[in-house]
Amino acid sequence: MDRLVELIARRVEGALAGSAATSQTKAPCGSCGVRGGCDKKVVESALQLTGSRVSANIGLEAAPCSHVAPLIDHTLLKPEATREEVKQLCEEARRFGFATVCLNSENIRLAAALLEGSSVKPIAVVGFPLGAGTSSAKAFETREAIRNGAQEIDMVINIGAIKSKDYLFALEDIRSVVGAAGRTPVKVILETSKLTRDEKVIACALSKAAGAAFVKTSTGFGGGGATAEDIQLMREVVGDDMGVKASGGVRTIDDVEAMVKAGANRIGASSSVAIVQCERGETGKSKGY
Amino acid sequence: MDRLVELIARRVEGALAGSAATSQTKAPCGSCGVRGGCDKKVVESALQLTGSRVSANIGLEAAPCSHVAPLIDHTLLKPEATREEVKQLCEEARRFGFATVCLNSENIRLAAALLEGSSVKPIAVVGFPLGAGTSSAKAFETREAIRNGAQEIDMVINIGAIKSKDYLFALEDIRSVVGAAGRTPVKVILETSKLTRDEKVIACALSKAAGAAFVKTSTGFGGGGATAEDIQLMREVVGDDMGVKASGGVRTIDDVEAMVKAGANRIGASSSVAIVQCERGETGKSKGY
Repeated sequence: MDRLVELIARRVEGALAGSAATSQTKAPCGSCGVRGGCDKKVVESALQLTGSRVSANIGLEAAPCSHVAPLIDHTLLKPEATREEVKQLCEEARRFGFATVCLNSENIRLAAALLEGSSVKPIAVVGFPLGAGTSSAKAFETREAIRNGAQEIDMVINIGAIKSKDYLFALEDIRSVVGAAGRTPVKVILETSKLTRDEKVIACALSKAAGAAFVKTSTGFGGGGATAEDIQLMREVVGDDMGVKASGGVRTIDDVEAMVKAGANRIGASSSVAIVQCERGETGKSKGY
Repeated sequence: MDRLVELIARRVEGALAGSAATSQTKAPCGSCGVRGGCDKKVVESALQLTGSRVSANIGLEAAPCSHVAPLIDHTLLKPEATREEVKQLCEEARRFGFATVCLNSENIRLAAALLEGSSVKPIAVVGFPLGAGTSSAKAFETREAIRNGAQEIDMVINIGAIKSKDYLFALEDIRSVVGAAGRTPVKVILETSKLTRDEKVIACALSKAAGAAFVKTSTGFGGGGATAEDIQLMREVVGDDMGVKASGGVRTIDDVEAMVKAGANRIGASSSVAIVQCERGETGKSKGY
């Protein structure tokens, strides 16, 4: 297996060398200077990548940057979140048309009840935020969250296994969650701030091999957030048939656009309401715990 | 139930008012000025509180402050911990005679194998560090950790339930872990930095009512660590028939002595080797994630 992963990593590295050369030949966007286009067009192509709706603005509150709402996982993961805050999150998600709400698994049942009849899906985080529980505990948490109404699962990879070069273990750990999730899409949080470039490449390759739907940068609790460089790397490794979610420190419409331009087609944010109000400024800092 | 908890909290507050008056009448220690004694005597009485051994120095490496070793849960909870680091932790625990090693549940099987034949017990953290998973997921994790060799369980209380004043839920959450643990002692991590004084009192009362063996201050990931004031409060609420563990930011022998004098009879620390080497200086800061 070690050899297989090395082969995957090498092939991925080879592909990257080629695609990097190609992407640099793309002409930068006229208005923002970013390669690959900008603004609404980029968002639309990001939405098309995973078949999301381009707009879902029937009955939604008008907001100047509402075009990014269908990309956003509206997120509340702090452990002291009250029931009232969970309710508010769900109301905001309905009101502005966010793709999902992203919550700790204890809050899923409540969120699922509150979101019934809307297009907003509840996401449960699993093995969160350390990823250092057993695979069977992660699988149990996954099955229960889905029974309680979760429609997507964001799991944390076993970072210690990656650091220990036990790639087979890390692969099987993801597989056990993907297996438990059945048809429910699984995102694999890599906690990029803790990984080297090679480890990020390997973690992406393992996530894809295990059948996950997305790779995701950060928990928001790990001392670092999403960067455009990481998103670009992750997109290049997983290709176009898998999702890439930028999370951790994404707080403004500028952050969102930078991530989308780098290749993200989903954004995890707590400041989602400010984002659809077009709050400007680059933050790029993780909120932490 | 709400009324019951209010009654508990009121009774506890009443008892505190009395005991605070009493403790203030105690003469301070001659050499260190701390009420209730100091140094080895305090450590010995702390060990006696939960029937731990006063010394276990047969075959152990001599260290100038080894008298505190039997109080210490030697801790490694960072998610990027490698197998090699887990091995090192277990070796150090054997060598210096620490009470336990405290690990994420994925590492318990390895630690239990490494510690076989020694007096060092593996502790698994559960629902860690947010405490926001479902009660049945916490119970599952507990049962599995014990099957894998955990001899103590450190669970995180549902902080959101405390903040939402859903005390019945918080109580049942602890009970489900205590029930799953059977005879294995359960510590309840309150994450004191996130609670008000009243919430700390209630959380202690709930932990005691649910049959937990210990209350514990902090995860070390929650932006705050143990303080002498919190330890004193927790000890006064739970009395002498329950344990109090100080964790988060305890890094020197001075920190350990301050916590023990305040009423702790167990210490969670990553810097345990430096502590038994009598490293001085008050830190009191949480290492964080």
